[in-house]
Amino acid sequence: MKYYLAVDVGGTWLRAALYREGESLPAAQRRARTPREGRPEAALAALLQEIWPAEGEVLGIGVACPGPLDPRRGVVFATPNIPAWRDFPLADYLRQTFGVPVAIDNDANLAALGEWRYGAGRGHHHVLYLTISTGIGAGVIVADRLLHGARGLAAELGHITVVPDGPLCGCGQRGHLEALASGTAIARQAEEALARGEPSILATQPRPLTAAQVAQAAQAHDALAQRIFTQAAEHLGRALAGFLHIFNPSIVILGGGVVQAGEILLRPLEATLRASVMTPAYLDGLTLTTAQLGDDAGLLGALALTRASHPANQATK
Amino acid sequence: MKYYLAVDVGGTWLRAALYREGESLPAAQRRARTPREGRPEAALAALLQEIWPAEGEVLGIGVACPGPLDPRRGVVFATPNIPAWRDFPLADYLRQTFGVPVAIDNDANLAALGEWRYGAGRGHHHVLYLTISTGIGAGVIVADRLLHGARGLAAELGHITVVPDGPLCGCGQRGHLEALASGTAIARQAEEALARGEPSILATQPRPLTAAQVAQAAQAHDALAQRIFTQAAEHLGRALAGFLHIFNPSIVILGGGVVQAGEILLRPLEATLRASVMTPAYLDGLTLTTAQLGDDAGLLGALALTRASHPANQATK
Repeated sequence: MKYYLAVDVGGTWLRAALYREGESLPAAQRRARTPREGRPEAALAALLQEIWPAEGEVLGIGVACPGPLDPRRGVVFATPNIPAWRDFPLADYLRQTFGVPVAIDNDANLAALGEWRYGAGRGHHHVLYLTISTGIGAGVIVADRLLHGARGLAAELGHITVVPDGPLCGCGQRGHLEALASGTAIARQAEEALARGEPSILATQPRPLTAAQVAQAAQAHDALAQRIFTQAAEHLGRALAGFLHIFNPSIVILGGGVVQAGEILLRPLEATLRASVMTPAYLDGLTLTTAQLGDDAGLLGALALTRASHPANQATK
Repeated sequence: MKYYLAVDVGGTWLRAALYREGESLPAAQRRARTPREGRPEAALAALLQEIWPAEGEVLGIGVACPGPLDPRRGVVFATPNIPAWRDFPLADYLRQTFGVPVAIDNDANLAALGEWRYGAGRGHHHVLYLTISTGIGAGVIVADRLLHGARGLAAELGHITVVPDGPLCGCGQRGHLEALASGTAIARQAEEALARGEPSILATQPRPLTAAQVAQAAQAHDALAQRIFTQAAEHLGRALAGFLHIFNPSIVILGGGVVQAGEILLRPLEATLRASVMTPAYLDGLTLTTAQLGDDAGLLGALALTRASHPANQATK
C-alpha cells in the first residue's frame, strides 16, 4: 500500500492526516495544540509519527502553513502564533526526519488547491478563491496552475488599496481590502460606531466584539450591524469585479468564517459585483459559490500539493 | 525559406511585416490607413498580399488587434475606430483568404508578449506590462504563459477601482485606474482645473488639451501640471503595489505615450510604489523599466504569437 501524509499548521491546532494513494478520505488523522514555545516542529513530527503507516510506503508529505513562506525552498519566514519559526526550513526538517519528499505552501494557496481538486472548483481551469476571516487571503489557479509569482509571494488579493489613505491594515499599509472587509475590520467598525454612541443591540454584548456577533446582530435586523455588513460587502463586490477583470476566472469560491454570515453579506456582495463589471461577459458562465471543504481545505490542499509534486503525477498537471 | 507574417491593427494605421523564420527584423513591411468604412479586412488582406513572399512557405500569420476579442476563436467583438468589425471572425477570414494558420490576440497582451520575447522582458518568467496611453492596458506573463483567463478577458488591469465613486471611466464604471491616470484622465483633469480658474501656462494652449501638453507644462515647472502628474503617478504607484501583491512579477515594464513624460511621472510613481508594498520582499530583485519596442511592440508580439502557435515550437513554450 502507498500513502500520502498531509499537515495543516494552524495558530491553534496542528493537524495531520494519512491518505491511501488515490483516496481523499483520511485513513487516519490526529491533532495537537500548537505549542506556543519550545520546538513546534518536534510536536509536528510526533504527530506524523503517530499516524505513520505500519507497513507500506509514504510517497510524500504536504504541508499547509500560514505564510509568508517560500514554497520553493520550503522555508517559513514567519507564521502567526509560532514565534519560534523565523526563517525556519520546515521542509528540510521534515525531509531529514522522515526521509520522504516534502512540499509546502501557504494555507490560502492550499485551500484554493484543495477546493479545486476536491471541492467546489472541480473541473474548472481558472479559479479564484478568497477566504474572508481574521484577514483576507486568496489563492488563484491560472490555467490549471497555482499562481506563485517570481518568489512565491503572489495572490495576496486582500492587500490591494480600495480606499486611498483608508483605515490601517494589519500589514501596515492603509485602505487595503483586508482593512475594510475582513472579520477584524467588521468588528473594529462596530466598536468604533458604538464608541461614537450609535444605537445598536451590540452595545449590550460582551466586548471586544467579533464579526460573528456583528453578523448575528445584522441577522436580527440591527441597523448598525446591517450597515457595516453592507459596506464590507460593497468593498468586496467592487474588488471582486476588479479581480474578474484581472483574472477572468470561471469560478469564484468564497471561504472563511465571515462568509458564514450568509445572505446579509452575499446578497449585497453579488449585487455590487453585478453592477461593477465592465461588461456582462465577465459574468457569463461564472460560478459564484462558497467553499465546500470547510476546516479540511488546508489538509486536502496539502494532499493535492504532495500528490502533484510526486514525479509520477507531474505529467497530469 | 520559411516565413511568418505579423499584423498590427491600429485605429489609425494597419501595419504588416514579413519575418524570416528565426529573425525578428522584418524582411519587408508595409502600412495603410485604417479604413473608417467599407471592409477593413479587405484592406488588411491587400496589405498582406503586398508583402507575401514570392517564394518559400508562410508558416502562419499573427494579428494584434485592440480588444475586446476572443483569442481562442479569433473573433473581434468590437474594436475602436473600426465600427464594421462587430463579432467579426477575423482569424477565420484570414485563414480562408490565405490558407495558413492565423493566431490573434489583443494589442496589450501582444505588446507584453513582444517585450517578453524580444524587448525589456527577455529572460523573465513573471512579467507585468502596463501601457499608459489614451487608456490603460496590460498584459501579464505568469510562469512563461500569457494570462488569458477562462474566456480571454483577463489582464484588464486598468479597470480596477482605485477611488470608490471616483470619476467616470471609458468603460462606464467609476473610479478605475484608467479614469485617474490615463492620458485621457490627465488631460481631463487639466481642463477641469482650468475651468475652475486655476492659474497655469496651459491656459494659453490650444484646446482640447492633450496629456503631452500637460507633460510639457509640468516639465516647465507649471504647478498645476506638476500636481496632476504627481497625483496620477501616486494612483499608478499604489495600484502597482497591489499588482505586485497579486502577481509578484520579477519585472514591471511601463509602455505607452504617457510614460514618455519621463521623470515627472516615474519619480513619484516609484516613490509611491516603494512606500506602498507590504514588505520589501516584493521589490527584491524587481526590475522596473520602460518598454523597449515602441511602436513595434504589437508587430513583434504578433510575431511571437504566431511563432509560439506553430506546432514545432509548442514544446519550447
